[in-house]
Amino acid sequence: MNSNAKASVITIGDELLIGQTIDTNSAWIAQRLNALGIDLVHRIAVGDNVPDITHALDAELERSHIVIVTGGLGPTADDITKPLLLQYFGGTMRIDERVLEHVRNIFSRRNRPMLERNLKQAEVPDSCEVLFNERGTAPGMLFRRNGRMVISLPGVPYEMMGIMEQEALPRITATYGNEVAIVHHTIVTAGEGESFVAEAIADIENALPAHIKLAYLPGAGMVKLRLTGKGHQQQLLQDQIATFAAALTQRLGHLVVSQTDEPMEYAIARWCATHNATFALAESCTGGLLSHLFTQIPSISHHFVGGVVCYTEDAKVRTAGVNPETLATYGAVSEEVACQMAEGIRAILGAQYALAVTGFLGPATGTENQPIGTVWIAVDGPQGTIARKHRFYYDRQRNKEMDASMALLLLWRYMNGTIVAA
Amino acid sequence: MNSNAKASVITIGDELLIGQTIDTNSAWIAQRLNALGIDLVHRIAVGDNVPDITHALDAELERSHIVIVTGGLGPTADDITKPLLLQYFGGTMRIDERVLEHVRNIFSRRNRPMLERNLKQAEVPDSCEVLFNERGTAPGMLFRRNGRMVISLPGVPYEMMGIMEQEALPRITATYGNEVAIVHHTIVTAGEGESFVAEAIADIENALPAHIKLAYLPGAGMVKLRLTGKGHQQQLLQDQIATFAAALTQRLGHLVVSQTDEPMEYAIARWCATHNATFALAESCTGGLLSHLFTQIPSISHHFVGGVVCYTEDAKVRTAGVNPETLATYGAVSEEVACQMAEGIRAILGAQYALAVTGFLGPATGTENQPIGTVWIAVDGPQGTIARKHRFYYDRQRNKEMDASMALLLLWRYMNGTIVAA
Repeated sequence: MNSNAKASVITIGDELLIGQTIDTNSAWIAQRLNALGIDLVHRIAVGDNVPDITHALDAELERSHIVIVTGGLGPTADDITKPLLLQYFGGTMRIDERVLEHVRNIFSRRNRPMLERNLKQAEVPDSCEVLFNERGTAPGMLFRRNGRMVISLPGVPYEMMGIMEQEALPRITATYGNEVAIVHHTIVTAGEGESFVAEAIADIENALPAHIKLAYLPGAGMVKLRLTGKGHQQQLLQDQIATFAAALTQRLGHLVVSQTDEPMEYAIARWCATHNATFALAESCTGGLLSHLFTQIPSISHHFVGGVVCYTEDAKVRTAGVNPETLATYGAVSEEVACQMAEGIRAILGAQYALAVTGFLGPATGTENQPIGTVWIAVDGPQGTIARKHRFYYDRQRNKEMDASMALLLLWRYMNGTIVAA
Repeated sequence: MNSNAKASVITIGDELLIGQTIDTNSAWIAQRLNALGIDLVHRIAVGDNVPDITHALDAELERSHIVIVTGGLGPTADDITKPLLLQYFGGTMRIDERVLEHVRNIFSRRNRPMLERNLKQAEVPDSCEVLFNERGTAPGMLFRRNGRMVISLPGVPYEMMGIMEQEALPRITATYGNEVAIVHHTIVTAGEGESFVAEAIADIENALPAHIKLAYLPGAGMVKLRLTGKGHQQQLLQDQIATFAAALTQRLGHLVVSQTDEPMEYAIARWCATHNATFALAESCTGGLLSHLFTQIPSISHHFVGGVVCYTEDAKVRTAGVNPETLATYGAVSEEVACQMAEGIRAILGAQYALAVTGFLGPATGTENQPIGTVWIAVDGPQGTIARKHRFYYDRQRNKEMDASMALLLLWRYMNGTIVAA
């Protein structure tokens, strides 16, 4: 079962070690390798200095078949990766004509002067295969040694992803792809904590064969259960995973909200596509987060017609159609205002569904009746209006995430008919 | 200069290696350690298995004085860290009464049944100091060996941060704090690329003394320059950094937008606080991202009155006061519509300033005159209305980020008077 190719990721940059940048590249690379049946076994971040990078290369080439290095390839003086790789793998620098032409084109298209240091980006060690970077000026490089490969990529995510997709993954697949199949299945649950879920399915978990693992991933108001199987027969493995997933789903009943490891907004978007539905948003405390999440999805404009971020009481009246008397009587964080926001924005924008959220995030708001952390969420649609109250005890940002998460869940359940208006 | 204490972070979890989770903990930990003058030299992610975790502990204890381990402490069966640490450091498991009482309270406050596996969270090796977790059930643990420390923390960011602030950082400071001062200064520039900036300041960079480093951090439409100095005399170091920062600032002139390493929305919020100003937003292609960014800031409700996400033409008319004829004549992505959106939302919400963004993100929109990637941004305020056009060539999400970044920059420059209406 251990004949999978192993991979390591080395990310280079002092900015990672002083916390100025969050590394999103590694997770993306991990997903892509995993889909090829390649295990990412190690991820490591080192500073911009030759000894640490060299030591990391030594250690990871010992451990893994594929070592992916990101960062340290830009045009400025703090970039040391390319000379280091030349030193490490030997050879001499050469100019790559295709890269040079490409860099020239980028600068002429943008009407920018071309500098000596930009020309240097076309220099590559003759000991590497050039991985062409359609999206930027710094090429990727692939070095081979003793049946292993080191792939060096720029740290800018958009460029890194382009080179991986177009240049690196095909070469990785050709050399190491698909020795062992890996199958994942994720069940998303909501409404109970990790311990409760674990207790409810303990006997199923204990009966899992050795080649299938179950992991618990707690998130904002939800717990994901991830089944992972490894084996040599893809179809058999898929059948086994499906059987266990079905058993877990039956046991957990109404706690299960999805069988796909996708954010809840994507599940809602898929539902809307299937049902040709439209929706609108009225956000107070979530402050645009829900709109932002939905508008990350391509073609969402067929379903998401628009929304308002009515952060003040005045804005609730002027943009979401809330009655000022309702605000005065019940306060901004109330069932009545949440329902009027949903009904109001649905009418104003002519949408089939509407979701509204109003709450106190903290740290400096709240009232005696509705303390910090209180949120009212309402959905309006063809089946009437429903509202739910939650209270969270976290800090501002986490409360906002929880509010958004619970709001998406309520809309999802309303659309699916698993929750109905009184 | 190398007498700083060194630290490593080990993050545990298969979810990190299959790319299901993005590690935000490490960056946060790095910032906190750095502020104490402690160098984070290594960050490493390993899977949920005993050999890899043990090997990582061996290697990082060799390398660093402080090893921080996150993840693998939850109540469910996939957690293996605690028994491993018991094995690694010796001792026997004991029940910690304070933790037990705390876990009981959490469950009784939430009216949840308490399970056997929750009780087990109060078990700790007697070879560790317990780091009390006010925010959750899994306690942190601190082990000492040969003048070095291993600190084990839960992976949930909110809980990890609480334990670090309240329990771990004070102990780290007591043992290793402030041997060497580290001073950072970041200058944020916009309008030119990394190479251009580097060329413009090459002589200043070359004149930097050995103990001061300059790094280039390219971001969405901006390049940050980070000066980092290390030394034994804090005040002298601060003066030196200030001198070089002033030289860089003078040289780069109008490209410099900020002297603080903070997101542009925070700079705008500070300006609004100083000038007692209010603003509103009308977002089309940025789809709520700008609202979301602003509402991450505590007390922003004093300045941000609200906004609309007018994703369709109809929504632009109904919620942002755009004239349907203007839409028909010029199209949704036009200077005229952008200006009407800004003027409209400013009037509707009675704000002093308004920012509007309308563009085509892709992948499936755009017109002959205004292709995918085109964006019009407008600001309306006491000095009149201005608008700017940009075009980006990235994918949907990156185009959205660039649009938001350019919009914030335009509002910032308008407020500062460095850009004026014609």
